[in-house]
Amino acid sequence: MLNPVTPDFEKTLRGLLPAAAFKDDSAPYLSEPRGRWAGQGLVVAPGSTDEVAAVVRACADGRIGIVPYSGGTGLVGGQIQQEGPVPVVLSLERMNRIRDVYPMENVLVCDAGVILADVQKAAEDIGRLFPLSLASEGSARIGGLLATNAGGVNVLRYGNARALCLGLEVVRPDGTVWHGLTRLRKDNTGYDLRNLMIGAEGTLGVITGAAVKLVPRPVGVGVAMMAVTSPAAALELLAMAGAQIGEGISAFEIMHRQGFDFLSQVGPDIKQPFDEIPEWSVLIDVGLPAGLSPEDALEGLFASAFEAGLVADGAIAQNVAQRDAFWHIRESIPEANRRIGSVSSHDISLPLSAIPAFIDRGKQALAEVGAFRINCFGHLGDGNLHYNVFPMPGRNRADYEAERPEVKRVVHDLVHSMEGSVSAEHGIGRLKVKDLETYGDPAKLAMLRAIKSALDPLGIMNPGAVLRQA
Amino acid sequence: MLNPVTPDFEKTLRGLLPAAAFKDDSAPYLSEPRGRWAGQGLVVAPGSTDEVAAVVRACADGRIGIVPYSGGTGLVGGQIQQEGPVPVVLSLERMNRIRDVYPMENVLVCDAGVILADVQKAAEDIGRLFPLSLASEGSARIGGLLATNAGGVNVLRYGNARALCLGLEVVRPDGTVWHGLTRLRKDNTGYDLRNLMIGAEGTLGVITGAAVKLVPRPVGVGVAMMAVTSPAAALELLAMAGAQIGEGISAFEIMHRQGFDFLSQVGPDIKQPFDEIPEWSVLIDVGLPAGLSPEDALEGLFASAFEAGLVADGAIAQNVAQRDAFWHIRESIPEANRRIGSVSSHDISLPLSAIPAFIDRGKQALAEVGAFRINCFGHLGDGNLHYNVFPMPGRNRADYEAERPEVKRVVHDLVHSMEGSVSAEHGIGRLKVKDLETYGDPAKLAMLRAIKSALDPLGIMNPGAVLRQA
Repeated sequence: MLNPVTPDFEKTLRGLLPAAAFKDDSAPYLSEPRGRWAGQGLVVAPGSTDEVAAVVRACADGRIGIVPYSGGTGLVGGQIQQEGPVPVVLSLERMNRIRDVYPMENVLVCDAGVILADVQKAAEDIGRLFPLSLASEGSARIGGLLATNAGGVNVLRYGNARALCLGLEVVRPDGTVWHGLTRLRKDNTGYDLRNLMIGAEGTLGVITGAAVKLVPRPVGVGVAMMAVTSPAAALELLAMAGAQIGEGISAFEIMHRQGFDFLSQVGPDIKQPFDEIPEWSVLIDVGLPAGLSPEDALEGLFASAFEAGLVADGAIAQNVAQRDAFWHIRESIPEANRRIGSVSSHDISLPLSAIPAFIDRGKQALAEVGAFRINCFGHLGDGNLHYNVFPMPGRNRADYEAERPEVKRVVHDLVHSMEGSVSAEHGIGRLKVKDLETYGDPAKLAMLRAIKSALDPLGIMNPGAVLRQA
Repeated sequence: MLNPVTPDFEKTLRGLLPAAAFKDDSAPYLSEPRGRWAGQGLVVAPGSTDEVAAVVRACADGRIGIVPYSGGTGLVGGQIQQEGPVPVVLSLERMNRIRDVYPMENVLVCDAGVILADVQKAAEDIGRLFPLSLASEGSARIGGLLATNAGGVNVLRYGNARALCLGLEVVRPDGTVWHGLTRLRKDNTGYDLRNLMIGAEGTLGVITGAAVKLVPRPVGVGVAMMAVTSPAAALELLAMAGAQIGEGISAFEIMHRQGFDFLSQVGPDIKQPFDEIPEWSVLIDVGLPAGLSPEDALEGLFASAFEAGLVADGAIAQNVAQRDAFWHIRESIPEANRRIGSVSSHDISLPLSAIPAFIDRGKQALAEVGAFRINCFGHLGDGNLHYNVFPMPGRNRADYEAERPEVKRVVHDLVHSMEGSVSAEHGIGRLKVKDLETYGDPAKLAMLRAIKSALDPLGIMNPGAVLRQA
């Protein structure tokens, strides 16, 4: 069992860290982005790897839990501990230094607390791209993005956070430091600890630094929106895009008409690109090398797809403002969803070819539970749908407390039966611990627990996240 | 302590497996590719995942070691156990079925025993590319390629074996099966067991199946050889290629004149592309989407590089035969090396920008040990050099027994001091266990041992590989 933070323990930490590491107001660190849960804990913000190690050693000595806190944008409660012995909340915000940039190597090394937008900016400053991109990039920090293996809109082309990391510096649960901050592209010396820490959501150690990959900036970029005749047609269009444009497709997002309806009902304001809002549309983002025109590529794709009956309408951005306007539509959907208030939201992934059947069967299965509006949108290119279930007009989220567990169960059972995942990019945190227990392969669960016990025998690292506290 | 295979145990296995699983001649499974070590063991070749599980359960019951055997092409003795209690050598050769191909998903699912060339062929049959490519692709099998996280010539563009795998089926050391054979692009449900098994060299379980990624085939491919003025110029050329051609560079290989000298001395026969053999040359392979000419791209690159003083000479392949001829030079170097016989070979990686200094300092450091010929070549784009040290003319490998350990130490110490890796792509196997102990970060070694104990508590999986047997 863990012990709670006591006044004496706080005194110990105050002796180890400068005054700047302690917060007058801990409230922002103890609430989650949608205000659904409240956490607890003593917030400390060490300014260096050594200071992180000192905090962790003190916690190990006192058997006190540590909840790592990065940008605080996670949606599954990984950074919020609601119950159990009061933990230390360890914020990385003061470790916000870009340590080094290596233009010739296409590598950037930084503290874990650097904000994603600052990494993107530093890459841009040397003519490179750091392709990790998601709605919260102005506040999410690198340590948390790696700890949760964040996804976002460019995974199709560049992979998730995991694929963009070369090395890590990690403070282990006993306070020792793993110096794994390599810039190497190849290193086959032992088990892949980097990828074990990435996605472990702070349960195996605290990421304090990272070496990340940069990539060449595409010379020509272009965006199109196309009205597809069905989800199956959207998948055929994706395959056609791959055949015609190769690896130049950076993003391939699908949107259902429900999202447009929500936007027109509650905002944010958008400029409608289609004459008539289609049931299904896709946003395609391409980035091409010198010598190729993105507009020509997208026009060629549209012509072939129209000929094949895959698309009925389309618009190709002719300038930066139009590109931004198209992306603004896609990026405003989550905000419109929040304003409406979902009954239940699901971050799921499926084998690509299973998606059309899932969309049909999901609709049927939910109809048996009750009447709902479904807003299905997301990263089709990755097989990742945000499949969100909403109240009927005139009713709201609170009216559906009784149905919520059943809605979630129906969706997740269907996903599981179709070989999908009930957490594609958001992780497990504390919200989905039970889902992992329900849907996880038994051999997998046994290995997760064995690894947790082996690397954090006291169970102090982010207690209760990913795995139920032993 | 483990027990040896006994006649009784063999009888048990014969009761579990069909006669086809037993070999009349075990010799081919007990020698390594260069004939340097001889192994031991009872060779069995199960035909299915269930049969593998049955063997593993029997071994767990009897506390008998298991040495997984895939294509047998590994160079660090991971598939060869020379000493200790006689183990079972578990060959995957009879599990050689491509289970499914999903063109729309760009995914192929196969048994672990499928030969790499057969996977490449199956991808080609549906107009896709499986980009893992290396000299032993005609005999290396997928399970071993993943267990060792194989590299090869296309890592620069497509990543190593790790980057090409979506899911795994693994028989665990207790004989239970982890059903992780997912085709999902995104799945953030718990620790990354896939990447933990990839590169674990069979010490945490036996890979029996894999889902791998396919990619679009580049429409236009081209190859050039260029004489660079120095290793530093080669790196500037690599950066220039990235800026001009973007992500279309599939391979960027460097070769020292020593390799050409060996080829002219002992073969294989090659056609010399340069008027005068340069001290350093590079092979650049590009694959571009429709609408771009690889020849134009390579000519443009050569012109800029010539203008900048980076290259002195160059040849761009004008047809398939010339492309093959250029690659034949690069791919013949390892064979020429074998015919000469090295004093010591090193598969190292370095941060890209450290490479020119390493080449200078390595030469100086070895000169203090004695007189040698150095053949330095390899995957410059990945920072991965095959840095091989050879006898002076008229002498041979056997004359240098006394110097060998010192040569290796000098090279590896230098690599380590420059933040490099002493095993870039070949792995640890049994040959480099001591190197891992010497150069591995202590926190890393502690984690490797903890993971091994947690997942293979009896220590039966590939005993003595990666980590010294406890």
